[in-house]
Amino acid sequence: MVNVIGNYGNADGNGRSLIMNGHIDVVPEGPLSGWTSHPYKPEVRDNKLFGRGANDMKGGLTAKVFALKAIKEAGYKPNAPVYLQSVVEEECTGNGALACVAAGYKADAALIGEPFDEALVTAQVGVIWFQIKLSGKPVHAERATEGVNAVEAMLPVIAGYREMEKQWNNEKMNYPDFAQHQHPINLNVGEFHGGDWTSSVPAWAVLNLRIAIYPGDSLSERSRQIEKTLQNLIQENGLVKKAKPVLVYHGFYGEGYTLPENTDAENELASAHEGIFNSPLKRIAVTAATDSRFFGIYQNTPALVYGPSGERIHAFDEYVDLDSLKNITKVYARFIQNWCGITEL
Amino acid sequence: MVNVIGNYGNADGNGRSLIMNGHIDVVPEGPLSGWTSHPYKPEVRDNKLFGRGANDMKGGLTAKVFALKAIKEAGYKPNAPVYLQSVVEEECTGNGALACVAAGYKADAALIGEPFDEALVTAQVGVIWFQIKLSGKPVHAERATEGVNAVEAMLPVIAGYREMEKQWNNEKMNYPDFAQHQHPINLNVGEFHGGDWTSSVPAWAVLNLRIAIYPGDSLSERSRQIEKTLQNLIQENGLVKKAKPVLVYHGFYGEGYTLPENTDAENELASAHEGIFNSPLKRIAVTAATDSRFFGIYQNTPALVYGPSGERIHAFDEYVDLDSLKNITKVYARFIQNWCGITEL
Repeated sequence: MVNVIGNYGNADGNGRSLIMNGHIDVVPEGPLSGWTSHPYKPEVRDNKLFGRGANDMKGGLTAKVFALKAIKEAGYKPNAPVYLQSVVEEECTGNGALACVAAGYKADAALIGEPFDEALVTAQVGVIWFQIKLSGKPVHAERATEGVNAVEAMLPVIAGYREMEKQWNNEKMNYPDFAQHQHPINLNVGEFHGGDWTSSVPAWAVLNLRIAIYPGDSLSERSRQIEKTLQNLIQENGLVKKAKPVLVYHGFYGEGYTLPENTDAENELASAHEGIFNSPLKRIAVTAATDSRFFGIYQNTPALVYGPSGERIHAFDEYVDLDSLKNITKVYARFIQNWCGITEL
Repeated sequence: MVNVIGNYGNADGNGRSLIMNGHIDVVPEGPLSGWTSHPYKPEVRDNKLFGRGANDMKGGLTAKVFALKAIKEAGYKPNAPVYLQSVVEEECTGNGALACVAAGYKADAALIGEPFDEALVTAQVGVIWFQIKLSGKPVHAERATEGVNAVEAMLPVIAGYREMEKQWNNEKMNYPDFAQHQHPINLNVGEFHGGDWTSSVPAWAVLNLRIAIYPGDSLSERSRQIEKTLQNLIQENGLVKKAKPVLVYHGFYGEGYTLPENTDAENELASAHEGIFNSPLKRIAVTAATDSRFFGIYQNTPALVYGPSGERIHAFDEYVDLDSLKNITKVYARFIQNWCGITEL
């Protein structure tokens, strides 16, 4: 998979430029038995499009393409560059969007079509992925008590990080955007693999964890807490110690992002939204990360995260609502018109 | 892998016939980093042969071949059929030895060269493998608390079977061969796999477990207890219930075996052992299963389990002691001579 970037817009125009960013990578579909229709054979039922990635986020990315197509077919061109960025690796690192930044793409605003139910994301968490690797002392099951079971040594590790998650959630009052959220910090025990043979004490185990951090948090400080938690486990639990834990950061290592208040970009988007939906634009704080941090933090560009309604991202029977998708396409087109200005072809 | 069976002996002789059985399958080697030398490049250090399977049980199988070779090269032939059975699947089911029985091979005694330190195994446990499969409700990690985490739902399952193991060990006083054993019933949490993506709540998890049963135990009664334990877990734990547990017997399902007391076969082996080692034959009860149950239980044939010294079966740096292996080869040859009788070629 590669990034693909296009530009439809007048490079010499006097409008405000725009990056329209969306990712094409999707997470694994899980057991097929959980799906009503095949995850990779999109199916429309009840005006919803079902399939892995329909909502996260082929929908929002497609809306961008059709918004530009509509402008073109109406006989117009944006009055500034509009970069359409189809990027990779949003689901694990953000390296696709980072590559766009590194390649020098920059604009007066960024619009990311993540599917947050027609609401604007004004605050979002950062995410750290980390991996704990344990080494056991394998022996025959006949003398299992003489070995070091790498799988079972992971159980107190899971419990230890659940405790850390609780402590981090207890800090939410320090973060106004998340103070009222019921559970802003989610630790996810995402993958657990260990052992090769039912009658051998497992020689190895690997646990993949994801945890959120609040926007404004220092990645290095939160990492230090992750490491400290493991150090404490090693000191407190003989089995964990024997299993010689190794901590690896194996993917996401990204800050949270808060959209600056009252930017022109937000105001234009709100106006476009109200024009189509006849209702005010909702603002939400979300407990997921998006690629907005690259534009927002590294380029000081207002990064708007706004996309269609749907359900079940990362779950079975993921879908995007097609009525919502059409309306979002219209909002995007109107936003381009107002933000960049348009000129006749 | 296939079974290979040879016969070196006089079919019309008036001696007692013998099955010499050994398995060629080995368990996985685990991470190479745990090994001093490569598990599949046998290396002799300090008169020990290191490698996966060196002890369990290429050693004992090789000793059988060389015992027969020695008899032949000395100009003799056993005075009854001696079937050398190189079998498969001892480590997971016993289906290799079972196939020999099903094919009609039968003799007056069986000798299995499992590496129990030059001692005769007079009692051994049976083994059941079982697998618990859980189905989660996958969701994005941002809302992890709304999902059903199949990996975490397995944690109470592990705890529940540890409790069952404890109860089964508490019954040891009812089994004279194991009453003095510190821990006859070993539950092994052998393999644990679940989840596909660090930022998705796992939709699935599979746990592979091995547990012993006492010789004389009914497989169906012990299975019922395994199933009952799971039923109790489902009733007591909402998360386990939500994860819709499925129990599968995925390999071993074998009874224990107790060698009848004071058989001619045992007496002849003891005599051969004393002749080579100048010390009495030790008798032990072991907490592992071997293929002896097929001959002993299904064919009412005394099944002697007796092989060389070594260490670390199913572990790193497995080895067989080469001095021991030579002596065991001699014992085998002498046992054949006395059990079957030999005639000049």
